[in-house]
Amino acid sequence: MSGQFSNALDLADWSQRRLAQVEQTLRQGIDAHAPAGLGQAMRYAVLDGGKRLRPLLVLAAAEAVGVDLEAAVISAHPSAVAAFRAACAIELVHAYSLVHDDMPCMDNDVLRRGKPTVHVKFGQAQALLAGDALQALAFEFLTPQDGSTDLQVQAVQVGLLARAAGYQGMAGGQAIDLASVGLPLNEAQLRQMHGMKTGALLLCSVRMGAVCNGKPPAQVTSSLAAFAQALGLAFQVVDDVLDVTADSATLGKTAGKDAAAKKPTYVSLMGLQAAQAFADKLYQEALAALAGSGLNPTSTQALRALARQVVQRDK
Amino acid sequence: MSGQFSNALDLADWSQRRLAQVEQTLRQGIDAHAPAGLGQAMRYAVLDGGKRLRPLLVLAAAEAVGVDLEAAVISAHPSAVAAFRAACAIELVHAYSLVHDDMPCMDNDVLRRGKPTVHVKFGQAQALLAGDALQALAFEFLTPQDGSTDLQVQAVQVGLLARAAGYQGMAGGQAIDLASVGLPLNEAQLRQMHGMKTGALLLCSVRMGAVCNGKPPAQVTSSLAAFAQALGLAFQVVDDVLDVTADSATLGKTAGKDAAAKKPTYVSLMGLQAAQAFADKLYQEALAALAGSGLNPTSTQALRALARQVVQRDK
Repeated sequence: MSGQFSNALDLADWSQRRLAQVEQTLRQGIDAHAPAGLGQAMRYAVLDGGKRLRPLLVLAAAEAVGVDLEAAVISAHPSAVAAFRAACAIELVHAYSLVHDDMPCMDNDVLRRGKPTVHVKFGQAQALLAGDALQALAFEFLTPQDGSTDLQVQAVQVGLLARAAGYQGMAGGQAIDLASVGLPLNEAQLRQMHGMKTGALLLCSVRMGAVCNGKPPAQVTSSLAAFAQALGLAFQVVDDVLDVTADSATLGKTAGKDAAAKKPTYVSLMGLQAAQAFADKLYQEALAALAGSGLNPTSTQALRALARQVVQRDK
Repeated sequence: MSGQFSNALDLADWSQRRLAQVEQTLRQGIDAHAPAGLGQAMRYAVLDGGKRLRPLLVLAAAEAVGVDLEAAVISAHPSAVAAFRAACAIELVHAYSLVHDDMPCMDNDVLRRGKPTVHVKFGQAQALLAGDALQALAFEFLTPQDGSTDLQVQAVQVGLLARAAGYQGMAGGQAIDLASVGLPLNEAQLRQMHGMKTGALLLCSVRMGAVCNGKPPAQVTSSLAAFAQALGLAFQVVDDVLDVTADSATLGKTAGKDAAAKKPTYVSLMGLQAAQAFADKLYQEALAALAGSGLNPTSTQALRALARQVVQRDK
């Protein structure tokens, strides 16, 4: 069943139409006139780049629970507005984390999405502030003050995003990552680290999308969470594989960096071939979780197509 | 009238009882077991230090609009829980900003509240992450998921805090501050910079307290905002005065630093005596705003006492 439906969706077309709206919302919401160059640094960090996987997951999850995202109805439907705002918010958190992660005291990376990193272009102080301001802006996006979204949905989405971004999620995972360079982590430890560092935001993307209409049934919530967790882990395994098999030009960032830094990866832990097989297994788990959600297979086809893209991507 | 009532309140006693609850809530909410030392760095940055002016302003504003903060009733009243959570949240944002502000790429300060700064104690990477995680935690504090506060109040408070912390507020003010070292700012420019860098969070403190019960009357909202804006500016003027007149041991941070860094200050702009007179004038403006709020003078006595403390402090 699921294969039949996933073939029906043109993911490139689906993504393009939704991302046009996401980009426009981001562009309008990141004030170029923010003082003393801060706005330029923030825009540089966010606009015109990235795969936008997290926003697409938010929107696909919103569609899965019945939110109508067609352009003509967005402005009139609080749930559609909430979905697009959440899509932007999660990308802002992702973008801020990259800005800070690239700084000299962290990964000290000079190339991101094929461009100089923010601190290389604007200086470390401005990069630090831009990251801080982007995190705050994410919560601004979730709390429009014009009555365009439901206040209860706002509060629930903020609760999800704050917990996914903080010490129990992304920031906590980064702390483990920093502390584990050169250490022989086992698979459980590696899974915990990535589950927090990368998985938490991917899970949050799906969760924020799923609450745009209000609280979904428990079976839907738990199935979507299982989908997102399998997908999040697959994403990281594929990242580790690509760090070995792809070149910097394709990736848009420095390849082979994990190995050079002696960071533990799924490839270093289980070997290249087994890591690739593991990613495929996780993809199947993600599809199985969706199939057991009770949701209409037509409504979940974008989620399925995104999962396939995560596993089959080459950058 | 206002003098009579402000004398009736023992501010030290009032503050001590409320701060005991704030400290307990912060201590419970900043998980010492957060991974890889992150929890220790976060606790070090927040606990056992600081004047806690912002939390006290939140709580005083909440009392001004009728929220009952006596210990016996806190747990049963969503508005009291919302006030204490907002008090903690604003302190978390303030604490994160100090952690990042002290880093080598910003002010490069090694002493804060009489202790080594976070990056000196835990390293720059951990300081960066701890600051990031503290900002996220602020929004967690505002969005408890146990039904203890009203979801609409949560959303409104998040909206206020995100805007006060971000590019239109604190982060924007810091960007202007960085860009203006050594430049001859005039009073209007200095006022804008401090209004964003410091004033926005002080104003937000009062605003978050004032919405714990729901939206207050327009006259109350505007009067409290005028009070907070005068107070915020007075706070900065007194800070500039103390940077000249106090020593490092009393301040718990490096004195004379602004002059050494050639940062524009109210003292460098108008002279010491005129700056002191300006602070007094702003204090009177703050009291006048409260007197015109229509609020019962008894309910605003903590706000008046805090304003007096801001102007009369010696550190």
